[in-house]
Amino acid sequence: MDKVYYFDNAATTFPKPDKVIEAVTEAMKNGCVNVGRGSYDMAAVAARDIDRLRKKILECSGSTKGGNVVLTPSATIAFNMLLGGINLRKGSIVYVSPFEHNAVMRVLHAKQQKEEIIIRELPIDKDSLLIDMDKIEYEFSRYVPDMVCISHISNVTGYILPIKEICESAKKNNKYAVTVVDGCQALGLISRPLLDNNAVDYYVFAGHKTLYGPFGIGGIIFHSAYSVDIIKNRESYVPYICGGTGMDSLNMDMVQDSPEMLESGSIDIVAAKGLLAAIDIFLQGNFLHENFLKEIFMKEKIRTEKLTEELREIDGVHLYIPKNRDEHISIVSFNVEGYSSQETGMILNDDYRIAVRTGYHCAPLIHNYLKDEMFHGTVRASVGRYTTDEQIRYFVNAVREIAQE
Amino acid sequence: MDKVYYFDNAATTFPKPDKVIEAVTEAMKNGCVNVGRGSYDMAAVAARDIDRLRKKILECSGSTKGGNVVLTPSATIAFNMLLGGINLRKGSIVYVSPFEHNAVMRVLHAKQQKEEIIIRELPIDKDSLLIDMDKIEYEFSRYVPDMVCISHISNVTGYILPIKEICESAKKNNKYAVTVVDGCQALGLISRPLLDNNAVDYYVFAGHKTLYGPFGIGGIIFHSAYSVDIIKNRESYVPYICGGTGMDSLNMDMVQDSPEMLESGSIDIVAAKGLLAAIDIFLQGNFLHENFLKEIFMKEKIRTEKLTEELREIDGVHLYIPKNRDEHISIVSFNVEGYSSQETGMILNDDYRIAVRTGYHCAPLIHNYLKDEMFHGTVRASVGRYTTDEQIRYFVNAVREIAQE
Repeated sequence: MDKVYYFDNAATTFPKPDKVIEAVTEAMKNGCVNVGRGSYDMAAVAARDIDRLRKKILECSGSTKGGNVVLTPSATIAFNMLLGGINLRKGSIVYVSPFEHNAVMRVLHAKQQKEEIIIRELPIDKDSLLIDMDKIEYEFSRYVPDMVCISHISNVTGYILPIKEICESAKKNNKYAVTVVDGCQALGLISRPLLDNNAVDYYVFAGHKTLYGPFGIGGIIFHSAYSVDIIKNRESYVPYICGGTGMDSLNMDMVQDSPEMLESGSIDIVAAKGLLAAIDIFLQGNFLHENFLKEIFMKEKIRTEKLTEELREIDGVHLYIPKNRDEHISIVSFNVEGYSSQETGMILNDDYRIAVRTGYHCAPLIHNYLKDEMFHGTVRASVGRYTTDEQIRYFVNAVREIAQE
Repeated sequence: MDKVYYFDNAATTFPKPDKVIEAVTEAMKNGCVNVGRGSYDMAAVAARDIDRLRKKILECSGSTKGGNVVLTPSATIAFNMLLGGINLRKGSIVYVSPFEHNAVMRVLHAKQQKEEIIIRELPIDKDSLLIDMDKIEYEFSRYVPDMVCISHISNVTGYILPIKEICESAKKNNKYAVTVVDGCQALGLISRPLLDNNAVDYYVFAGHKTLYGPFGIGGIIFHSAYSVDIIKNRESYVPYICGGTGMDSLNMDMVQDSPEMLESGSIDIVAAKGLLAAIDIFLQGNFLHENFLKEIFMKEKIRTEKLTEELREIDGVHLYIPKNRDEHISIVSFNVEGYSSQETGMILNDDYRIAVRTGYHCAPLIHNYLKDEMFHGTVRASVGRYTTDEQIRYFVNAVREIAQE
């Protein structure tokens, strides 16, 4: 295939590091067995690898004080498992940010229809596209939250949300409020998001995005002691995804003594070993190489700014980014006047071999603020660890040519 | 790692064909993108590959008259999606065979607690371990089935169930009965299971078992027109696994116009391409190379019989297999007197580097018939496409030595 200028890293990061590809190939050849179910050495080795993966995820998330990890085939399954299973009383108030993805929104919408919960949107400022903490404090005190679901980084605007402040405010108003963070665009890019961030109960991640692992593996970090108490109690959590767990097979109830016991079905050991290799890149032994991760972040930040600033210079380009540049990373949504987002995406592909995503990006609420109706969504360019300055120059030049036509 | 004698093919087939490993590696390197969500050539190529995969699965299943395929990360997720979402009235009668796996049983058990359905077990003969069709006919006429869930091949005894007869009998008694077959141990081993088998509505498969694909991909074959009608109707089906589908993003309901629209989250394109390569092995172009597949079946059958007959000769070995040898394939469960199944498994691993699985194999009901309590389940040896006569001789010799100790 001809060279492609890949600007769709928010959908899945590409290319994957060589070490990840090698780990996947090696696992396919020699380690492709069922984890923890067989009574033989290969299965035991696989089980140890899964255990190492859990520890390393905790290390790079900063959840090092007794956190747990549930592995799932994807973040989508993680959200269904978690939000589908938590018992909320009729009339419970669930807050979402307007940045939420359909992996959260559609699950909550389905839950709303079954359980008559009330979904409220966190206020943001229309012009700056930033969270309005003052208004949130007021909202939380007036309509006390039972649950809060927020993205760490918006997959549409690249906005880094103040998850610590929002979750702390929720807990201040109701210490039993359940806080869920969607870290799909953040873990592996933002160093230790859960360090000193104890108001977050659950942090969901996808292996194939900012962590640079393969498809097929994601999960939930159970960060707080409260997060584990909830799932251990049949009154507060009913297992939503059921199946074989390789243990206690004669029991037809899912065992919910610990988060890991909720892992139904064969773990994708190949994807898990790929993710292990991906995380090893920024670990030194078992510990996070924090400077290296900060460097990754800074490089990506510089490229994001370069792309943003150069696109801003072009007449006829509309940008959809947060006003505060310190809270913006990776993702630059825009449109070119005179073209729908789909048309721009098609020209970028056909004439320039540039890969972007166009439309609504599975985020249903934020478009109420973006004023992108006439463009049918946005063109989303997302940079990654391997995006080069040359690629960014090429990209900007392409957009300039389209805008000037 | 030292050479391993792998007899755990029922957990996951191993080794994988070279072509599958190559396809996975190639996809990791060059095709690891988000399917159908980006507006660029690589995403379009991925979407075409997924479309080809659906067609090939239909071809090898024999569901060639307008069947549909929903791809899921695993068979477990497929069962949750399907059984969790189908609406059954309070008091509805759901039949299961005693061979069912916890991927079915635990989902139904959870459903029973929520929806007050009635779960009934299909009668089998205690001595032969075969389905008793006469008794089933009687049961179905007396307690009319609303749903029937049956395995195609038991993962404990290797029994090939008469799925056609059972499903036809169910439909004869209630044409609206929903019939679900667990084909995890069968698709890719039994040629065209759905050909002339129109009483089956849903056929669930796992990519990483008898199809010899990677972990991370499985699904549901929607075989009958009725199977599609059910999911299209909000009264009879409420989407159970929700999330982004890359289409209609502003709609907070899952679109259920077609089965494929229920596929939430990023499809694991790498696993999908591996499975495509795995299926290509027994296709000629787009069509099933039926003789080749029959040859695979016959070879595996011969090895199964050899293993069975040689183990039967050993004093102190108890076999748990169906009486009719024509209805038995791949899996040979047994115990050695004087040892728990776990002990036998450990000796096989430690002293002989033989990989088996021991215990209850996530199948909670069948052990009521096997009389294996004192052994805490069974030792399960499962042969595969690459099991050799030499390996079987080695295996039998090991068991003989253990039994004679």
